[in-house]
Amino acid sequence: MVNVAILGFGTVGSGVAEVLAGHEGSIARKADGLIRLKYILDVRDFPDNPFRDCFVKDFAAIEGDPAVDIVVETIGGTGAALDFTRRALEAGKSVVTSNKELVATHGYELTRLAKERGVCYLFEASVGGGIPIIRPLSQCLAANEILEIYGILNGTTNYILTRMIRAGLSFDAALKEAQEKGYAERDPSADVDGHDACRKICILAAIAFGRHIYPEQAPTEGISGISLADVDYAESAGKKIKLLGRAIRREDGRVCVYVAPHLVDHSDPLAGVEDVFNAITVRGDSIGDVMFYGRGAGKLPTASAVVADVMDVARNLGHRKALSWDEGGEDAVCGVEELRSRWYVRAAASADELRIALGGKLPAGRGTGSGEAACLTDEAMTRGELDRKLAGIETLSVMRVLD
Amino acid sequence: MVNVAILGFGTVGSGVAEVLAGHEGSIARKADGLIRLKYILDVRDFPDNPFRDCFVKDFAAIEGDPAVDIVVETIGGTGAALDFTRRALEAGKSVVTSNKELVATHGYELTRLAKERGVCYLFEASVGGGIPIIRPLSQCLAANEILEIYGILNGTTNYILTRMIRAGLSFDAALKEAQEKGYAERDPSADVDGHDACRKICILAAIAFGRHIYPEQAPTEGISGISLADVDYAESAGKKIKLLGRAIRREDGRVCVYVAPHLVDHSDPLAGVEDVFNAITVRGDSIGDVMFYGRGAGKLPTASAVVADVMDVARNLGHRKALSWDEGGEDAVCGVEELRSRWYVRAAASADELRIALGGKLPAGRGTGSGEAACLTDEAMTRGELDRKLAGIETLSVMRVLD
Repeated sequence: MVNVAILGFGTVGSGVAEVLAGHEGSIARKADGLIRLKYILDVRDFPDNPFRDCFVKDFAAIEGDPAVDIVVETIGGTGAALDFTRRALEAGKSVVTSNKELVATHGYELTRLAKERGVCYLFEASVGGGIPIIRPLSQCLAANEILEIYGILNGTTNYILTRMIRAGLSFDAALKEAQEKGYAERDPSADVDGHDACRKICILAAIAFGRHIYPEQAPTEGISGISLADVDYAESAGKKIKLLGRAIRREDGRVCVYVAPHLVDHSDPLAGVEDVFNAITVRGDSIGDVMFYGRGAGKLPTASAVVADVMDVARNLGHRKALSWDEGGEDAVCGVEELRSRWYVRAAASADELRIALGGKLPAGRGTGSGEAACLTDEAMTRGELDRKLAGIETLSVMRVLD
Repeated sequence: MVNVAILGFGTVGSGVAEVLAGHEGSIARKADGLIRLKYILDVRDFPDNPFRDCFVKDFAAIEGDPAVDIVVETIGGTGAALDFTRRALEAGKSVVTSNKELVATHGYELTRLAKERGVCYLFEASVGGGIPIIRPLSQCLAANEILEIYGILNGTTNYILTRMIRAGLSFDAALKEAQEKGYAERDPSADVDGHDACRKICILAAIAFGRHIYPEQAPTEGISGISLADVDYAESAGKKIKLLGRAIRREDGRVCVYVAPHLVDHSDPLAGVEDVFNAITVRGDSIGDVMFYGRGAGKLPTASAVVADVMDVARNLGHRKALSWDEGGEDAVCGVEELRSRWYVRAAASADELRIALGGKLPAGRGTGSGEAACLTDEAMTRGELDRKLAGIETLSVMRVLD
C-alpha cells in the first residue's frame, strides 16, 4: 500500500483524485499494489465532495505523517508550492508535479534535493500535458546526442493562430473566442506572450542538454503582433505561422533557447498541428527527427500524466529514478542574436525596395499594393545582419523561417 | 562497470556497437557508470573490424561468463535467437532485443521467464525502430484505459504508397524503386504483405491490453492489390490510402487486431506521414489521442533504441523493470468480421448500380466511365453486411475507412 497526498484541489488536483479513483483496479495491477489517496490539502471546504474525508488544511499533517510516500503538488506557482515541495522532499517523500513554473525556475535545486534524499521528483505533466515527452527524452532517446528540440508547446496560442489561419479571424477576435471556449484565461498574457511556452522549452532543454536554463535566459516573443496580412503572406509562400519554443545545441556546447513565432513549411509535420494540440520534435544524432503529438493541456490528460508518475514511483519505491541536471549559468546559453535563420519581413516599402534590400522571394498577400510588401530571404543570416540590410526601411513584422 | 554481449553482427548489431563506442562518455554519465562491450557473437570473421577482439563463435562463452550482465539479441527470427534468449535469461542475464518476430511469437514466455529470474527483457526497438513507443505506452500512459492503437508501422509500404500517391507510380514500379533505394528486401513479402506490421501491432496490443495476441490471430492484408484507380478515388474523396495495424478494445474486453490498407482522411495526422516514416496513435480514456512519429527503421535509429534499453538496465541493475502480460487465447481476440466501419468499394458496376446498392458518396476517379465506379458508404457496417448489399456486383477493391 502506497499513500498519496494531493496539494491543491484545483483543475489538475481534482483530476488526479478522479483518475486515481476511476482506475483503481488497473492502477493497482500495473503498480503492483494499491495506491491510496490519503490527504488532499486545500484551504477551501468541499463538504459534498466524494473525497471529503481526505481534506486537511495544514501541510504539517502531511509532512509529519510517515505513512505518506508520495506528494502530488498541483498548487502551481512558486510560493507555497516551492515551500511544500522542499519540505516534502526533506521529509523523504517523493514529489510528483505538473507545475512547469516551479520546475523551470527551481528544477535544479529540487532535483538535486531529491537525489540527496534518495527520493524522486517527477514532472512528466509539466510539459505537453498528457503527451509523453519527459520520460522518452530522458530514457528512450538517451543513446542520442540531442541536437535540437522545437515544438508547439502552448495550446491556447496554437488555437488562436489556427483560427486566424483557417477562419480569417483577427488576433483579438480569435483570442476572444478562445476565452469564451475556456482555452484562454481572462488575463491571457502568460499564454499569448509566450511565457508558458518558455517555461516548457527551458525544462526540455535542461533534460536534453544537462544544464539548467532559466526562463529569463530565453528571449520570449508572443503572437499578439501577428496580423492577418502576415498569415496571408505566409500562406502564399506555402507556410504556416506557429509559435515555437526552440532549444538548439551549438557546436561549442552552449544552448540557444528562445520562444518566437516562426514560418513553418507545410511539409513539416508541425504545420499540420492545429487547434489546442501540441507537438514536440526532438532531433537526435542517431534517431533523426522524432515527434510527439497530443493534447498539451486539460484536466484529465494532465492528471493522467501525474498519475502515471505516481505509479512509477510506487512501483519503484526505495529505488530512486534519477532525473537531474547541472546548475546553469551565463556560459550555458548562447544568445539568439547569434542564430542564423532565413527571415520573413513585412515592411512599409515597395516590392522593389524590399527586393533590392533582401534579394529574396516576394510572396503575394493582402497587403500587396497598399504601401507595403513582404519578403522571405533566400539566405540565412543573424538578426543583426538582417537589420543592416533593412537600414532605412520601416519594418511591420519580422519572423524567422523554420528550415 | 556493466558488460554487454551482442548476438549477431548484422545491420542492427553493428549499429549497437557503433552507438556504444561513439557515445561512450555521455552513455557512462547518463547510465551512472561505464558500459563495456565484451563480446560479439557471429559465425563470420571480421579480422579488420575495430571490435575484432570482442568476437566469439560459441554462445556458451557468453552464457558461462558471469561478468556479462546484458545480452543484446540482434540475430532476428525465432531459431537461434529464441534458444540464446532463453539461455541468457536462465543464466540471470538481462536481454535487450530489436527482434519483433521473437517478441510477437514468444513474448509471453520470455517476459515471464525474465520476471521469474528477476532480470529484464526489453524490446523498445522492436516497434517503430527508434521511435519511443513501448516505454511511453507501458509507463507514461499507464493511468489510461487504452481504447485503441493504430498506426503506420512499416516504412517500406508507406514509401511505396507515398510514391503511388505523389508520383503516380504503379505498385510494381514503386516497389522496384524502394528495392533500388534499399528500403525493400529482394523478397519484399514480409513488408508488402503486412506481416512485419502485424508483428508490431501484436506487441503493442499485448502491452496495452494485457494479453498475448499471436500474429496468426490477427488477419493481415497487404498493399499489393492497391491500384492507381484506388489512389485516385481516395484522393478525390479527400483521403489517402495507408497500411494500418489496428488493435481495438471491445466493450467485452476482447481485442480486435488486424492489418489492412485504410482510407485515412487528410485531417488525420497520420495522412501526413510520408516516405519511410512511421507513426503510431494511441487513444486513451484520459489522454485522448497521442501520436508518436519518426523513422521506423534504419541502422542507427534502431541501434539507438537498443542502447537506450541497455542503459536503462545498467542504471537499474538488480532492480527488475516489469514489462509482462498474460497468456493469450481464443477468448482474448474478437474477429475483425465483427468490426463495423464505413467502406470504400470499387466495383465493375455503373455508378447507378453502386449508388442503389450502397447509397453512399461516389467520388470521381480515373476509372469512372470505364465500366467501373467507386463508392464510400455513409454508414458503418460489418464486412458481412457490406457483402450482402453488394450481392451480384463484382468488386475490384474493398477497404475500410478510418473514422
